[in-house]
Amino acid sequence: MIAVYPGSFDPITSGHLDIIVRASKLYESLIVVVAQNGSKVPAFSVEERVMLLEKTVASEELKNVKVACFSSGLLVDYTDNLGAGVIVRGLRAVSDFEYEFQRALTNRHLRPSIETVFLMTSAEHLFLSSSIVKELARLQGRIDGLVPAAITDDVRAKFLVQSE
Amino acid sequence: MIAVYPGSFDPITSGHLDIIVRASKLYESLIVVVAQNGSKVPAFSVEERVMLLEKTVASEELKNVKVACFSSGLLVDYTDNLGAGVIVRGLRAVSDFEYEFQRALTNRHLRPSIETVFLMTSAEHLFLSSSIVKELARLQGRIDGLVPAAITDDVRAKFLVQSE
Amino acid sequence: MIAVYPGSFDPITSGHLDIIVRASKLYESLIVVVAQNGSKVPAFSVEERVMLLEKTVASEELKNVKVACFSSGLLVDYTDNLGAGVIVRGLRAVSDFEYEFQRALTNRHLRPSIETVFLMTSAEHLFLSSSIVKELARLQGRIDGLVPAAITDDVRAKFLVQSE
Amino acid sequence: MIAVYPGSFDPITSGHLDIIVRASKLYESLIVVVAQNGSKVPAFSVEERVMLLEKTVASEELKNVKVACFSSGLLVDYTDNLGAGVIVRGLRAVSDFEYEFQRALTNRHLRPSIETVFLMTSAEHLFLSSSIVKELARLQGRIDGLVPAAITDDVRAKFLVQSE
Amino acid sequence: MIAVYPGSFDPITSGHLDIIVRASKLYESLIVVVAQNGSKVPAFSVEERVMLLEKTVASEELKNVKVACFSSGLLVDYTDNLGAGVIVRGLRAVSDFEYEFQRALTNRHLRPSIETVFLMTSAEHLFLSSSIVKELARLQGRIDGLVPAAITDDVRAKFLVQSE
Amino acid sequence: MIAVYPGSFDPITSGHLDIIVRASKLYESLIVVVAQNGSKVPAFSVEERVMLLEKTVASEELKNVKVACFSSGLLVDYTDNLGAGVIVRGLRAVSDFEYEFQRALTNRHLRPSIETVFLMTSAEHLFLSSSIVKELARLQGRIDGLVPAAITDDVRAKFLVQSE
Repeated sequence: MIAVYPGSFDPITSGHLDIIVRASKLYESLIVVVAQNGSKVPAFSVEERVMLLEKTVASEELKNVKVACFSSGLLVDYTDNLGAGVIVRGLRAVSDFEYEFQRALTNRHLRPSIETVFLMTSAEHLFLSSSIVKELARLQGRIDGLVPAAITDDVRAKFLVQSE
Repeated sequence: MIAVYPGSFDPITSGHLDIIVRASKLYESLIVVVAQNGSKVPAFSVEERVMLLEKTVASEELKNVKVACFSSGLLVDYTDNLGAGVIVRGLRAVSDFEYEFQRALTNRHLRPSIETVFLMTSAEHLFLSSSIVKELARLQGRIDGLVPAAITDDVRAKFLVQSE
Repeated sequence: MIAVYPGSFDPITSGHLDIIVRASKLYESLIVVVAQNGSKVPAFSVEERVMLLEKTVASEELKNVKVACFSSGLLVDYTDNLGAGVIVRGLRAVSDFEYEFQRALTNRHLRPSIETVFLMTSAEHLFLSSSIVKELARLQGRIDGLVPAAITDDVRAKFLVQSE
Repeated sequence: MIAVYPGSFDPITSGHLDIIVRASKLYESLIVVVAQNGSKVPAFSVEERVMLLEKTVASEELKNVKVACFSSGLLVDYTDNLGAGVIVRGLRAVSDFEYEFQRALTNRHLRPSIETVFLMTSAEHLFLSSSIVKELARLQGRIDGLVPAAITDDVRAKFLVQSE
Repeated sequence: MIAVYPGSFDPITSGHLDIIVRASKLYESLIVVVAQNGSKVPAFSVEERVMLLEKTVASEELKNVKVACFSSGLLVDYTDNLGAGVIVRGLRAVSDFEYEFQRALTNRHLRPSIETVFLMTSAEHLFLSSSIVKELARLQGRIDGLVPAAITDDVRAKFLVQSE
Repeated sequence: MIAVYPGSFDPITSGHLDIIVRASKLYESLIVVVAQNGSKVPAFSVEERVMLLEKTVASEELKNVKVACFSSGLLVDYTDNLGAGVIVRGLRAVSDFEYEFQRALTNRHLRPSIETVFLMTSAEHLFLSSSIVKELARLQGRIDGLVPAAITDDVRAKFLVQSE
């Protein structure tokens, strides 16, 4: 079975990577999908986010993981077109829970044949988010361990350039 | 991949059945496991609970679903012995979430190779539980729709006998 | 419209009284119903709980409030027999919320014509419960303000007797 | 007793309609009030939102329901001027709960004579919101069942025009 | 031990004052720090917020409380430079809880020697926020009791000027 | 300032130890108090629980930490008699939050001079509890890392004896 793991990944965090590694063991093929989020201005462009994901996946030697991006239309249509039957999501805290429940129910309303499957985020990443990473990077705070080792320098570089 | 869906199922509700039907599409084989819960006195014996599950599975023609029970030891050991790599759980509301998170993290601590995967309960079953079913059945309230059609009479009969 | 306000009231707290006072202004007649809760051993007998409620209602001169008790069957049947169309409940914190949602949905399943209506508990009673009152009274802690003034001595006396 | 049901209704969803139908049975007269929300740019103008509400109310033959809008000042003043003693709100999930608690307590601080009364949203609408409806409509997703039948075409038309 | 109490204080509320008074008894010295929050446009300038805090602290005769502001860099660095070992935060409701947990864990990641300590907000301030105060002041609603007595007129004046 | 850290500690977990270590740095003296919990039958006697705590504190060389037990009366009276002004509590998840809020508000009602101060449990212990430890030990599951190293064997031995 093919699974899709959608998100903004702005940028990918160690929490996302944990979900990718674990989900890659559950499905024949896992497609990590960078979704453009209309309402928020991202720090990294779609191309940069895809590049950071690909670098991470390569360095972790995750053979059955691919990276893609999707820019318009419904996620369930996109998932269906890829031949995937499962949407994977990581669950963190209570507020995530409600948002995720809402999305899962909406997607089931739109396309009952696609199932949303949740993995619990590891305890150490439970309160980690892309926003926290960006805030720390912007203030030159230590981000080691919060993002995959392979991209730590890229994330740091991004914000050095911006703050100059 | 083989998946295990553990629970007390005292008795199986329509919410459990919904998870069973959906999970059976995601895995090659799904084993519904009646777990004896030390702290609560069940209304139905393990044998009765297994029988109600088997009747339900048969009536729904779920070919790749089996029913089993496990009485002692750790769930992760039992799961491993069955050759299963996934534990399936249904998520309902916020209080479930914390309990389930705790169990999933404990199981990962004990056996990192087994993944716990969560499906969101359908909206109409979000606040349904075996306790509610038993309370209603005990008071001769209407339980149609709350338990699988195939076992409604069995559940009713159980509590008629008790209240005589 | 007649409304019913069910609860264990073991014993009535200042939070319950706040809901009674406010609900009594919203409905022609309010019937406070002592429900026997099968699973917990109460500190006060049903007769004592009714007496404490009646004393409180009398002292507050709540003319359109009556006290009743109900011992068997479904609450919705009892409510219907009283000619009431509304069940009033006070909402406190998040855990209440889920329990109350479950009861309200179950009652709507059983009898769609009866509506459950929620009032938010006043901020100062948000974390007050009959259990806290009993625990304090048992330890001779100060319960003034936590239960209606008219019954403070009765609650204290109950636990003095017990601890002798 | 007259009750007010305030909201942004941008646009009215099936969840809102469920609350309107049920609240209309509890009060002599129910006034659905379109509140202008300063912080968010609405998709529908106040006039459009009022029109969609009126169309819905007419098609459902809700005789004691009126639609109004309020643009400045405090909701409690507006409610008082209408001769209403109750503000009705629908409760969905945990995050709603906190926001609603905050508003109810603030309104009680401002005008203790007006009571806020909560109805639990039906299970099938528990995770439905105007935002979800707008997002789906924008992406030409299926909104049948998510908004009242009488206005489905209007909501669809709105977003067709926008996306052309 | 020196403690830091950071926040936006836009403006200080009675809930903030409650935390300040209580925290000032727990530590040798308490420094209330106005943090500039990049993402929100404040109603009061940093200078105004500092002034309102100083006026409040003076009127309450809190001898060991000082007011400061910090505009760039990491809070843990700023705290460390002040020689403080504790960050004090007030906890209100569930949504606060998650946000605060996230910040506390991030700050521990950055600087394990600094401890974040939480005080529970008093029940009567549990749902009070600077946003509620500003909304009420903007609409000429009554804010007495919601902000410290010493600054009520200043807050009112601010919004009178704005709405003219 | 002297602080009290009360709990059942049945048995002490790594999460408790984390709070003890961190709290011991914030206060001159920390007294860990084993509270007898009337409603639950403990696995370890009060004497055993005190012994496990003392063994842990000794092995960690926490010089300013003492262990005590309290068997009757109100915690605030006991705290006051020890000359302590602070009650320390660890916060884990959302359900903890409500319970802890209730206790903190009740204690403030009883004795406003004593402050309850909360530390956030470290992420890796967020879902750890004495109950989980006991359940695992009972089933001969791996408890390393879940309880302090100094007492791992004692906890294991306890349950070996019981299961023979």
